Amino acid sequence: MWVVPESEIAGLMTPEAAFEAVEAVFAAMARGDARNFPVVREAIGHEDALYGFKGGFDGAGMTLGLKAGGYWPNNQKRGLINHQSTVFLFDPDTGRVSAAVGGNLLTALRTAAASAVSSKYLAPQGARVLGMIGAGHQSAFQMRAAVRFGQFEKVIGWNPNPEMLSRLADTAAELGLPFEAVDLPQLGTEADVIISITSAFEPLLLDEHVTGPTHIAAMGTDTRGKQELDPALVARARLFTDEVAQSVSIGEFQHVAAQKTVSANDITALGHVILGNHPGRGDAEVTIFDGTGVGLQDLAVASAVVKLAKQQGKAIQIEI
Amino acid sequence: MWVVPESEIAGLMTPEAAFEAVEAVFAAMARGDARNFPVVREAIGHEDALYGFKGGFDGAGMTLGLKAGGYWPNNQKRGLINHQSTVFLFDPDTGRVSAAVGGNLLTALRTAAASAVSSKYLAPQGARVLGMIGAGHQSAFQMRAAVRFGQFEKVIGWNPNPEMLSRLADTAAELGLPFEAVDLPQLGTEADVIISITSAFEPLLLDEHVTGPTHIAAMGTDTRGKQELDPALVARARLFTDEVAQSVSIGEFQHVAAQKTVSANDITALGHVILGNHPGRGDAEVTIFDGTGVGLQDLAVASAVVKLAKQQGKAIQIEI
Repeated sequence: MWVVPESEIAGLMTPEAAFEAVEAVFAAMARGDARNFPVVREAIGHEDALYGFKGGFDGAGMTLGLKAGGYWPNNQKRGLINHQSTVFLFDPDTGRVSAAVGGNLLTALRTAAASAVSSKYLAPQGARVLGMIGAGHQSAFQMRAAVRFGQFEKVIGWNPNPEMLSRLADTAAELGLPFEAVDLPQLGTEADVIISITSAFEPLLLDEHVTGPTHIAAMGTDTRGKQELDPALVARARLFTDEVAQSVSIGEFQHVAAQKTVSANDITALGHVILGNHPGRGDAEVTIFDGTGVGLQDLAVASAVVKLAKQQGKAIQIEI
Repeated sequence: MWVVPESEIAGLMTPEAAFEAVEAVFAAMARGDARNFPVVREAIGHEDALYGFKGGFDGAGMTLGLKAGGYWPNNQKRGLINHQSTVFLFDPDTGRVSAAVGGNLLTALRTAAASAVSSKYLAPQGARVLGMIGAGHQSAFQMRAAVRFGQFEKVIGWNPNPEMLSRLADTAAELGLPFEAVDLPQLGTEADVIISITSAFEPLLLDEHVTGPTHIAAMGTDTRGKQELDPALVARARLFTDEVAQSVSIGEFQHVAAQKTVSANDITALGHVILGNHPGRGDAEVTIFDGTGVGLQDLAVASAVVKLAKQQGKAIQIEI
């Protein structure tokens, strides 16, 4: 078994490797070569923790395994981050465990890569203004990936708690871009691409906020009850996601699905656009990518980082 | 993360430690302190493999994690065993992975321990004859555990393929007990405790075979469609299992549940007998324990072996 510790990931994983891995696995899912397994997610009744497993098999990339871990809300008091996860890869030929990889940074990178991949295929032509909704830990990863793979000249942002906006300003500065804190109507009007990554349980971005050709990557909703977007906005947009079944059950599109204003047939897996089987934006004014987060993304980036770690002599081999 | 490789398990794990771990976790399940998570089990579409995860949390033993792995039928050609698994333990206080443990031998030991625990509580008084149905890899583990924790003076056995009976004869000899190959009517008449551990998909042991006070540990059925016992035999017996929901869905009791001759309410989790909340055998002639195999058993024995490995300096610590 190869071990790649959490502390090595930052020095190994590149945004390009994450982007390529996620793009490839979305395509493999759309071709039917890769499949996510049912997600296990349980409140364990201790430390208010949510714990579970997201597994899958990519028969094209020959990647098999799972991410295990969850959300421990009291970790911060211990000086640990609240989301803790580890990815385990298995040899698809034999079933033997082949790698254990720290999953915390990888999770942020694969989530950011997913929205960047969605923008590559769905953003309106000439997109120059990036709008960020949310300023938590993950927002910086999202902005970095968006800017790296886009052509943005300016970042604007809004957060429920304005005190945290400094994270967006600092990250934009790090990327050499001007940043402006705005209200949501201005954000919806000016931004060409909007990334929403909050823990909201009610719509933040309303239908009337969004004008002109816009791509929205809704990355925050991964649980029943969470919600970032006005259902009326979703209902008039062209809809894409990582995995349709997950988007209508625990993703942003759960609400329009429950209201029956949108059905699963109205939602396209992004992989079909990557494969060229679906035109993507076409004549739509608003496109939305519902990034729910699938196990295969975790496996794809973990597999990429193990490869890099082996090449650079930073993977540790241990008998198991 | 502590690593205990497969090669160390045999030298570390004792039958007593496995027995105690399984007995304790069955009790914790019955008290409501421990809970298994939904099982993921998937045909991956490669190498005819079945792959999945069995997880759980024991809030009494403070054991959290999963067993991952499965069945790779072509492994034998590669010189590997077909069942491959690894157990991963997590710190319930923080969600961080705490151990990775080779799970192959542990699976055999925890399965054998479960049937031995069932015999401790359910075997008829003065049980002296052990009947073995099945002579595959696991049968030797089953016989060893039964003999270690029972008072058997003789082993009799039957296998669909008689050529394999030498395994039972050899194991009995290793344990210093006489062995006799018998037919099923003789086995059902003479044996006080019967362990059935085959991959059968139709009843082997029939109602008319079994006479007198008998305890049957049905350890082979862990998938929809598998079956070892005559439903008429099950219908007249007092029924016990590791986990009721699993026994009526993928265990031996799936068939009587489907026929509606037995309902989940007629089946007792063995933990309730261990806790003294249920009399166990009572005045029943035949008792059956349906050992379906739950993730918490795997976690319990893995946790025990990690403790032993640390004490004996055989666990390897590695940063992750």
